[in-house]
Amino acid sequence: MRIAVLGTGMVGRAFAARLVGLGHEVTIGTRDVAATMARAETDAMGNSPFPQWAAEHPAVTLATFADAAAPAELVVNATAGSATIAVLEAAGAANLAGKVVLDIANPLDYSAGMPPTLLVKDTDSLGEQIQRTFHDARVVKALNTMNAYLMVEPRQLADADFSAFVSGNDPDAKKTVTALLESFGHTDVIDLGDISTARGTEMILPIWIRLWGALGTPMFNFKIVR
Amino acid sequence: MRIAVLGTGMVGRAFAARLVGLGHEVTIGTRDVAATMARAETDAMGNSPFPQWAAEHPAVTLATFADAAAPAELVVNATAGSATIAVLEAAGAANLAGKVVLDIANPLDYSAGMPPTLLVKDTDSLGEQIQRTFHDARVVKALNTMNAYLMVEPRQLADADFSAFVSGNDPDAKKTVTALLESFGHTDVIDLGDISTARGTEMILPIWIRLWGALGTPMFNFKIVR
Repeated sequence: MRIAVLGTGMVGRAFAARLVGLGHEVTIGTRDVAATMARAETDAMGNSPFPQWAAEHPAVTLATFADAAAPAELVVNATAGSATIAVLEAAGAANLAGKVVLDIANPLDYSAGMPPTLLVKDTDSLGEQIQRTFHDARVVKALNTMNAYLMVEPRQLADADFSAFVSGNDPDAKKTVTALLESFGHTDVIDLGDISTARGTEMILPIWIRLWGALGTPMFNFKIVR
Repeated sequence: MRIAVLGTGMVGRAFAARLVGLGHEVTIGTRDVAATMARAETDAMGNSPFPQWAAEHPAVTLATFADAAAPAELVVNATAGSATIAVLEAAGAANLAGKVVLDIANPLDYSAGMPPTLLVKDTDSLGEQIQRTFHDARVVKALNTMNAYLMVEPRQLADADFSAFVSGNDPDAKKTVTALLESFGHTDVIDLGDISTARGTEMILPIWIRLWGALGTPMFNFKIVR
């Protein structure tokens, strides 16, 4: 599948590397290709400069958000939740129309310090905002309830004996995403319902952050025992 | 232990019956004892009239909120979240001072229909509201992430192979609650930290409600796989 991964951070890189490993044709989207390829410093999150990562992953191409999205069959939103709508606008509504947009972001607000709060919650969600803004896209919210390593390599922990969730209005889009998640190694993908159910998965973040603190590691996940 | 269970609904009844079965001395608190004992109809939630339940559970006594709380060593808040502060005020701050107050309620708001939203969230929680209002109580938030049957009889599902959480400012109070939960059969009680971590467990409710819909049963629970 031709896949655009929007975002050059740790999550975007983890996705792109895994997707290439599974045989997909992957382009990472960024705002300014020249600026991204001119980065020489480790970023604030501790990620190596993008050109170094790119050199280690020659099968992944880099393009503007719009050029990455235009030929893609599936677009992964791997940007910060606070930047998501602007990034998708840069990608272009026409370049998202009819396509599966896999939204893995969380609308975290760090403006008041730690722990972050949520920019939108309870009566709305980032997933719904994306679907409303880009009404011809087929938005599926998924994977935002776990860290990036478990998103794409779930068998690293407990042989993937835990749950992932999908939320979206388009059944076929959810089928496509579920198949992608299963190709990553996920064993239990639960369809929560329409995109408004993204409120539930986004509101898991506060306990996720507290569990990270209590357990001392982000390598944990939620299993729905039933 | 002498335990007051505030609330005559399904959750309070499940708690009282289980606690008596474990050898505790249990009084259920209600606003108006005579009115509660005069009930002859099944309530809106489908619960049998209280006098019928009371006749089936003769070891459980009934008293006003204040009379139930006064001699208790531990007070269980099994009221609706929207009523909690008023009920605890009726119980009386002096009757809660120094005691473990186990808060199992969720601040659900049904005023706009289904699914309910949360009355308080993200930057505050019901657990914190109780601790702020009754500053001499030792509030522990727990068990609000599962249905009442699993709260008190966790081995009904998957031999209790799932997680419970405790949040509170008082380490000894959390130890008391953890021991109580383990006596119910819980196998994995995670201490999330101070009472502000109740924001995390209360914000699980939106996905809990959606999972109930998706799975068609409330008999499920969250396991933190790590």
